[in-house]
Amino acid sequence: MKTKKEQVLIIGAGLCGSLLALRLGQRGYDVTLVEKRPDLRMVGQDAGRSINLSLSDRGVKAMKMVGLQDEIEKLCIPMIGRMIHDISGHKFMSLYSGKEDKYINSISRPGLNMLLLDTAEKLPNVKLHFNKSCESINFKNTMAVFEDYDTKEKITYNADLIFGTDGAGSVVRNNMFVNKDLRLSFSIDWLSHSYKELTIPATKNGDFRSEQNALHIWPRGENMLISLPNLDGSFTVTLFLAHETGKDNFENLNTPEKVSNYFEREYPDAKALMPNLTEEFFENPTGRLGTVKCHPWNTYGKTLLIGDSAHAIVPFYGQGMNASFEDVVVLDKFIEKYEGDWGKTFSEFQKERKVDADAIADLAIDNFYEMKEHTANPLFQKKRKLEVAFEDHYPGKYNSKYSLVTFNADIPYSEAMKRGRAQDKAILKLLDGGKLTDSVSLEEKLSLVLNETKNILHDDDTAKKI
Amino acid sequence: MKTKKEQVLIIGAGLCGSLLALRLGQRGYDVTLVEKRPDLRMVGQDAGRSINLSLSDRGVKAMKMVGLQDEIEKLCIPMIGRMIHDISGHKFMSLYSGKEDKYINSISRPGLNMLLLDTAEKLPNVKLHFNKSCESINFKNTMAVFEDYDTKEKITYNADLIFGTDGAGSVVRNNMFVNKDLRLSFSIDWLSHSYKELTIPATKNGDFRSEQNALHIWPRGENMLISLPNLDGSFTVTLFLAHETGKDNFENLNTPEKVSNYFEREYPDAKALMPNLTEEFFENPTGRLGTVKCHPWNTYGKTLLIGDSAHAIVPFYGQGMNASFEDVVVLDKFIEKYEGDWGKTFSEFQKERKVDADAIADLAIDNFYEMKEHTANPLFQKKRKLEVAFEDHYPGKYNSKYSLVTFNADIPYSEAMKRGRAQDKAILKLLDGGKLTDSVSLEEKLSLVLNETKNILHDDDTAKKI
Repeated sequence: MKTKKEQVLIIGAGLCGSLLALRLGQRGYDVTLVEKRPDLRMVGQDAGRSINLSLSDRGVKAMKMVGLQDEIEKLCIPMIGRMIHDISGHKFMSLYSGKEDKYINSISRPGLNMLLLDTAEKLPNVKLHFNKSCESINFKNTMAVFEDYDTKEKITYNADLIFGTDGAGSVVRNNMFVNKDLRLSFSIDWLSHSYKELTIPATKNGDFRSEQNALHIWPRGENMLISLPNLDGSFTVTLFLAHETGKDNFENLNTPEKVSNYFEREYPDAKALMPNLTEEFFENPTGRLGTVKCHPWNTYGKTLLIGDSAHAIVPFYGQGMNASFEDVVVLDKFIEKYEGDWGKTFSEFQKERKVDADAIADLAIDNFYEMKEHTANPLFQKKRKLEVAFEDHYPGKYNSKYSLVTFNADIPYSEAMKRGRAQDKAILKLLDGGKLTDSVSLEEKLSLVLNETKNILHDDDTAKKI
Repeated sequence: MKTKKEQVLIIGAGLCGSLLALRLGQRGYDVTLVEKRPDLRMVGQDAGRSINLSLSDRGVKAMKMVGLQDEIEKLCIPMIGRMIHDISGHKFMSLYSGKEDKYINSISRPGLNMLLLDTAEKLPNVKLHFNKSCESINFKNTMAVFEDYDTKEKITYNADLIFGTDGAGSVVRNNMFVNKDLRLSFSIDWLSHSYKELTIPATKNGDFRSEQNALHIWPRGENMLISLPNLDGSFTVTLFLAHETGKDNFENLNTPEKVSNYFEREYPDAKALMPNLTEEFFENPTGRLGTVKCHPWNTYGKTLLIGDSAHAIVPFYGQGMNASFEDVVVLDKFIEKYEGDWGKTFSEFQKERKVDADAIADLAIDNFYEMKEHTANPLFQKKRKLEVAFEDHYPGKYNSKYSLVTFNADIPYSEAMKRGRAQDKAILKLLDGGKLTDSVSLEEKLSLVLNETKNILHDDDTAKKI
């Protein structure tokens, strides 16, 4: 393998940083990957910090790019739909798509991260350093100063290129923000709700206590519970609860009794499967949820923010990791195209990718409301039923917004959002106008929806002409 | 006048802080107004820093509230429309409304600020302090520490209520942001363009060198020049120029010769009236333009951000000051309604006002594109001509988006945006569909536009049902 001349410094060895190190290593660059935390292959994972994630087509595409598709499959549990649990304990499955071969995967975050680190480390031109926290960056000279956690020693790394893959609270981004010359536009938008991770353990025999091939949701209007299966037979449960507003919130659920009563009232079937509920509730941290956007992502054509550091999103579309992985795929495309011209590579990457990152951020917020409220709304269920029927009977002719985002890795998020929203608006308009009654055939319904969608998109485009 | 028991601390004595001090003083509260800068009544105004502003109906309403309408009128020069200057020196007037009695006013920022300070200072229960810069705030105890500019002495003010009226770069807001317990959502969005103030001086006789009752615009697609009249016969000219992108920008116009050539090429008629162009260009500061949003505005029901500190906007709708003044009018309504219950007053204020502040911020960005590009676009001119005809022939039946925002102080910004955008979309759809040809009467055109607007609003509402 020929070694390229550029020295690359990657700050942050989470999912995105590890994948990027691996990919740039495969391309022959001399890569130094520096992480402030200890090597997670040597220490235990923190309890209560997003243990599993959902991996879907965009993420799978990135795994194929680096040749890890077979390895990854062993870590995955397919989920074919949402299992909705109502308050009286009844449940029903809402498929993600009319086609049963379309599914998303539950995957362990540390398991995936370890696989990426192991694979990257095997390359002779990739070096990993842990326990070194970034303190400051000179963007003009692409030089970064770190402090070693143990020795407190200051270490300076010089590089030709720096990638900031240090997540939502990015130090690289903060260094850009405080540098007034760089005029970094920035936003952080906290959600009204925070989260708490809990567990439904496996049975003694290691079996699942509930359907394993589903993402379980207990929508309760204001708040909700979800759970995803793990390979060991357990489920990781996440409570999304208002921080301080509404009747029940993290501020007032402050005793084991109150927590127990709340779960008994709202999620009795889930509570019955969680023997350690109150202990976990008070032991695990309460995680905050926010959306981070910023612009520009690149500085002097030599430093690039990528992944969560550039665009952290709320988890409700299950696309955070997938979006970060897709970043690496898109970047790789431009590295191939403009090989060696990094200013062009970074600016074209940003130009294509910023609108898509903004789109998935907004879609994820939409899905928060969809999951906690709308999944229990009859009008929403009517729309979903129709969409599932379209996808089932006319494969390829109709893709719901969810399908466009989740199962169509070649359609950019921004396009999926535009088309998906227009479709939703069209269906609701037709339902509202009494055009989709039972006497109308499914074929005719599809034709009405497609036509109305086309009109809506055309009118939106016309309105943008001035 | 009965003195109320609450001690009020207002941080920042710009336009909004001065008006708020005056109003709370009139209501009998014990008010301390603290400003970091010197008293602008004692020192000269900085050159090149937004000397004049446009005052319209929402701002005038606030002046009426505090009984200053007659005093204000003496400071105003009415502007009845936009005088558009093309590159060959031709010009034409685009009226703001079909009704000639609708106009906006050019007003001097320091003149207005001085009037508000003078009026507030006359009240025995209002105290002003200058040259004291806020360093930190304890939000739980409503206590703020200031440093005196001259003596460097630290001074602590205790209060029952604190208002942050310290503008776009608010120290009060920054103190909220760094306090993680407060979970302040925050965004700053820098515009691609910065600005530079210049001057068209009066003639030797003190006359205006161009039409005085207009806001002059030289739209050039990428960049633009505008000018507003001053009472002394001069115009304050503002160049809005890309910071570093495009052919001409602040980075590359870096010699007197380049500046002179640029103006000769793009704004020859304006250049002919600016004898000190290049001196001013290099002496006056380059101002950055950004949109600031944040949430929540109030902390523990005892501290409130209001005006630019809560929502700084770009200047292209001429609504920044008007929005801040309207804040005080809306706050005053809730003070009247919930007298003494400040938690309720602040939360209801925020609930009503946040959507309106967001709306005018977005409209101001829209107007940036409208002013620099669309005013020179034939399709836009067709739309404007039609709207002016509607407003002229059917007063009360039609208000353009601009009229809704500028001349309808009783319609909230958010409503003006929603309705205004739907109207624009309707007109463009009808023009696109060939429905507004010359053979259609004006009355019929109005009816088509109103009907299509209604349909668009209905469909948008339907789409929000889930």
